[in-house]
Amino acid sequence: MPEVKVVQQFMQANDAVAADNRRLLAERGVVAVNLMASPGAGKTSLILRTIEALRGRARVGVIEGDTASQVDADRVATTGVPVVQVNTGGGCHLDAPMVRTAIDALPLDEIDLLLIENVGNLVCPAGFRLGESQNVVIASVPEGDDKPYKYPGMFLAADVVVVNKIDLLPYLEFDLPGFHRLVQGVNPRARMFDLSCRTDEGLAAWADWLAGLRPQPA
Amino acid sequence: MPEVKVVQQFMQANDAVAADNRRLLAERGVVAVNLMASPGAGKTSLILRTIEALRGRARVGVIEGDTASQVDADRVATTGVPVVQVNTGGGCHLDAPMVRTAIDALPLDEIDLLLIENVGNLVCPAGFRLGESQNVVIASVPEGDDKPYKYPGMFLAADVVVVNKIDLLPYLEFDLPGFHRLVQGVNPRARMFDLSCRTDEGLAAWADWLAGLRPQPA
Repeated sequence: MPEVKVVQQFMQANDAVAADNRRLLAERGVVAVNLMASPGAGKTSLILRTIEALRGRARVGVIEGDTASQVDADRVATTGVPVVQVNTGGGCHLDAPMVRTAIDALPLDEIDLLLIENVGNLVCPAGFRLGESQNVVIASVPEGDDKPYKYPGMFLAADVVVVNKIDLLPYLEFDLPGFHRLVQGVNPRARMFDLSCRTDEGLAAWADWLAGLRPQPA
Repeated sequence: MPEVKVVQQFMQANDAVAADNRRLLAERGVVAVNLMASPGAGKTSLILRTIEALRGRARVGVIEGDTASQVDADRVATTGVPVVQVNTGGGCHLDAPMVRTAIDALPLDEIDLLLIENVGNLVCPAGFRLGESQNVVIASVPEGDDKPYKYPGMFLAADVVVVNKIDLLPYLEFDLPGFHRLVQGVNPRARMFDLSCRTDEGLAAWADWLAGLRPQPA
């Protein structure tokens, strides 16, 4: 099965670059957080609200990953923080070399917290380390409360699970305590935050947690 | 670049099986529709509502694709229609051989319309033909109206774009005419349906279109 061998070598190459990214970021005092989610779960909205919530406490930088376009980077740029758009050219996830290219284009000395928005995809990004300190999965209320059943690989990869759009709970059937139990069943070590980027409910706890992160040597 | 060669051969092999699936289905008088969407856009809900809307007009069969679990197949089975669950074992899309295995387990003589629910993913499934007559992308209002910008490959692959959850339009910022224009910009030939699986608004037009599909020789 020569194909499997190729894939393993490719994954090892990615992991080596990811480890190097992490070492480089730690040396420059930067904590990187990898934000993964379905399309439309609110990754960019969470980044925008987080930038505001951390003003004066942490200097944020952003890498925006998309298969195409730069609409997300344009939105982030309006906040004044450093941002780089990475287009994967149709690819379904970011990888460590893409992130390295973006890191090299960012003013690391002006950044404490690097938020990396991955391609909207609840499957493929889980398998690719980028150099992050924390992996965050953002679920959202309209997606339904059964996602940990169907995408266990993603929820297993998560250090943190955020439930976004809790302002929509009154309009939809979503069992929030049940969702928490489901996540804990798949991944007992996952930390959880429930919030709304529209009302800012729950945002302070998330921002406090981010502000407390420290660079970790590789 | 031996890796690229391997990938091309792999895609050609998939396309060959897809063409064979399509020929087999056409011979048995079955029309197959490939339903693609983000996680939580409402693929299973649309299948359930469609089964009800077509009762007495078309005999539906279902293939449920997921990375793990069989919760969707269990939901579909309650309707009494033939259903097969395909678990990809973490894989990010269905492929033609998986669908062939499922087809071989279905009573084709009792099926007019085969609805294939792909893995929830707005990137990877676009590249893999399964033997379908029609490719349908289901967008949903809570995901936001910018998805054709960010996932053009998926919207290009679509014969039909469905906007689901239009009952949530009063609670969210979603520019429906703007979304239609964006889809047309990416893919002028795409047919569009707006509907709600919760209120059944718009469902009749979608069901009528499905009921009018005829098997196409490969």
